[in-house]
Amino acid sequence: RINGDRLWDALMDMAKIGPGIAGGNNRQTLTDADAEGRSLFRTWCEDAGMKVGVDKMGTIFATRAGTDPNALPVYVGSHLDTQPTGGKYDGVLGVLGALEVVRTMNDLGIRTKHPIVVTNWANEEGARFAPAMLASGVFAGVHSLDYAYGRKDPEGKTYGEELKRIGWLGDEEVGARKMHAYFEYHIEQGPILEAEEKTIGVVTHCQGLWWLEFTLTGKEAHTGSTPMNMRVNAGLAMARIVEMVQSVAMENQPGAVGGVGQVFFSPNSRNVLPGKVVFTVDIRTPDKAKLDRMRAKIEAEAPAICDALGVGCSVEAIGHFEPVTFDPKLVTAVRSAAERLGYSHMNIISGAGHDACWAAKVAPATMVMCPCVGGLSHNEAEEISKEWATAGADVLFHAVVETAEI
Amino acid sequence: RINGDRLWDALMDMAKIGPGIAGGNNRQTLTDADAEGRSLFRTWCEDAGMKVGVDKMGTIFATRAGTDPNALPVYVGSHLDTQPTGGKYDGVLGVLGALEVVRTMNDLGIRTKHPIVVTNWANEEGARFAPAMLASGVFAGVHSLDYAYGRKDPEGKTYGEELKRIGWLGDEEVGARKMHAYFEYHIEQGPILEAEEKTIGVVTHCQGLWWLEFTLTGKEAHTGSTPMNMRVNAGLAMARIVEMVQSVAMENQPGAVGGVGQVFFSPNSRNVLPGKVVFTVDIRTPDKAKLDRMRAKIEAEAPAICDALGVGCSVEAIGHFEPVTFDPKLVTAVRSAAERLGYSHMNIISGAGHDACWAAKVAPATMVMCPCVGGLSHNEAEEISKEWATAGADVLFHAVVETAEI
Ligand SMILES: NC(=O)NCCC(=O)O
Ligand SMILES: NC(=O)NCCC(=O)O
Repeated sequence: RINGDRLWDALMDMAKIGPGIAGGNNRQTLTDADAEGRSLFRTWCEDAGMKVGVDKMGTIFATRAGTDPNALPVYVGSHLDTQPTGGKYDGVLGVLGALEVVRTMNDLGIRTKHPIVVTNWANEEGARFAPAMLASGVFAGVHSLDYAYGRKDPEGKTYGEELKRIGWLGDEEVGARKMHAYFEYHIEQGPILEAEEKTIGVVTHCQGLWWLEFTLTGKEAHTGSTPMNMRVNAGLAMARIVEMVQSVAMENQPGAVGGVGQVFFSPNSRNVLPGKVVFTVDIRTPDKAKLDRMRAKIEAEAPAICDALGVGCSVEAIGHFEPVTFDPKLVTAVRSAAERLGYSHMNIISGAGHDACWAAKVAPATMVMCPCVGGLSHNEAEEISKEWATAGADVLFHAVVETAEI
Repeated sequence: RINGDRLWDALMDMAKIGPGIAGGNNRQTLTDADAEGRSLFRTWCEDAGMKVGVDKMGTIFATRAGTDPNALPVYVGSHLDTQPTGGKYDGVLGVLGALEVVRTMNDLGIRTKHPIVVTNWANEEGARFAPAMLASGVFAGVHSLDYAYGRKDPEGKTYGEELKRIGWLGDEEVGARKMHAYFEYHIEQGPILEAEEKTIGVVTHCQGLWWLEFTLTGKEAHTGSTPMNMRVNAGLAMARIVEMVQSVAMENQPGAVGGVGQVFFSPNSRNVLPGKVVFTVDIRTPDKAKLDRMRAKIEAEAPAICDALGVGCSVEAIGHFEPVTFDPKLVTAVRSAAERLGYSHMNIISGAGHDACWAAKVAPATMVMCPCVGGLSHNEAEEISKEWATAGADVLFHAVVETAEI
């Protein structure tokens, strides 16, 4: 069993870095707070006897040696970056849970054939730099390094510049490492486990996603002196597309979601009809054919909505992953561990995307989930109990040690 | 006749200060660019022999003495501040047109009984600090000075702080001056004069306005892992209110407008359903009863839209003026001047709000309008011809001199 108090203390210590405004965290990718969190994590890894490497995307790999020099490592990790108004557990639990696995192995003097690599992927959230899961995507060969370096935050700063600025540009080639297996422990970020009163989610799949960035072009004009019939109102077109996305999601129930989290009006002045509105549609479902049908419908209906208003409409897919099926053997290892430890469990499909989804492209991969209160995540009020945190880390510990072979 | 070339040169010189990104201007209220524009204007006024005073709101009054020490002045002005992506003429034409009136009087050696006061009202646009026409509103006793000083820009800086910072906090009590009459020359900002092929708009009325600031409270949640039926989606509620406002405006045709120019999502992250959406509805019509009916309908329907989604809804009226009827004697003076000078003209209702609307509360007031290309304003591409600019300034000159009495 892992040490739940020690895990909890680590979570609370990390949460002191990049505090939010309502009890959560704002430790966005490649900010000063991110750098501070990384340094604390490195110190903890070194104190636990691990050797720390950093790749050219800024992902941190802390290695606990194995007994067989030829055995590929078992990777265990998640991410320390947060949303602008993020919680204390999303991602962090997976990184510090992995650290706790190693600390427990140290306590118990456990040696494994395969090395264990505690991993902190860079820019999982995709809040500051789209898309999400950027570093693991480059690792898996989905994106090029140049593409990633060129991604811009809302102020126009690039990933490449900011990685250098915070001092975490590593020298390892991204994706050069080979994995025996990849495990990720994460809070569910949804309501199912709590509602079903299960402590452990055995994650069999992850739903797929499209992020569609719309740029609508209207005509900036005075809100008072421009008659209704002369308006080219990009804001009204946006409103109609938001409603249409809602309908598309509802038509595809059960098992699909769709919504808009980000909207920029330009010039965003009370008495100016917007000349430009940029916003991102986020659609997801575990069914690949349905996902593509939803995208096709949205991309067919949006231009018609805009045409009717004379508004220009362009769409760019700025984020995508296909639905993922996790490795059956690793899934079984997680389920058996929960069973052995006596934790209630159920199969679950991840609603959010995770670095595990990209890792699954290059290695056997799976995830362990624990509940979160009210299903709430991407919210500073995100909460879990110490018991849940401990249970998931216990399961992770058992599955990892089994896979790494004593 | 005024000197059209000199007026045009002044317009082009002022447009060099606070250039926009597409040929227009960004000289928002109490920015460094505003301060620079004010200094240039002061120099021009002093060079024309006027005495410059500044009040506690930062409004600039440049006085050309009259021959009767007991006669109240005729005020002539508008505003030099612009929208974030504003044009070169909105407001500026009225201030520099007034200056051109004085320059022409100087050229011709005209002395009037009543002094002439060329006026640059502060914060007409209301883009950086809501509401619009703030300084003239304080002047007319509609707002208190404390209220005005406390108005905040989107970064939280107050009007009072910023006025001091740019060095234009004057010592005159706001509203202490008494006016014999107030004239304002402005571009139409709408399409009517151009469509009707008239050079001069004789402004008889100004339509009324409500700015309703909505704050919608949803629940920040993950866009991927939050099922549709658990969402408290403030963004969807906003979309429905935007559509409802459009319907209310359309039901009130002809002679009414309604729209939304400003929207803030929070936290505005692609994979977070917004916990808060703040946006401003702008509704206008020349009919007071209709204006209040439109407001009542919007304020009745919005909470129902929000309730259906579980979203919290609060509304604050952050800007308002009632429809205005301008002074019949001054309106006649403008019409006669256009007639005398041989310019085509028509009666027109101002679609935009103007400082003249507040001045009308404390003095006889009216306006002169010239067309603008395509009715376009609050857009960097706002354009007028030198001929139009000249014609309007000619009419202003004649009406002002007649009212100020030779
Ligand atoms: N787990 C998580 O919140 N990942 C961010 C990417 C996503 O939006 O699913
Ligand atoms: N003229 C003008 O654009 N004034 C700003 C106030 C308004 O929105 O009408």
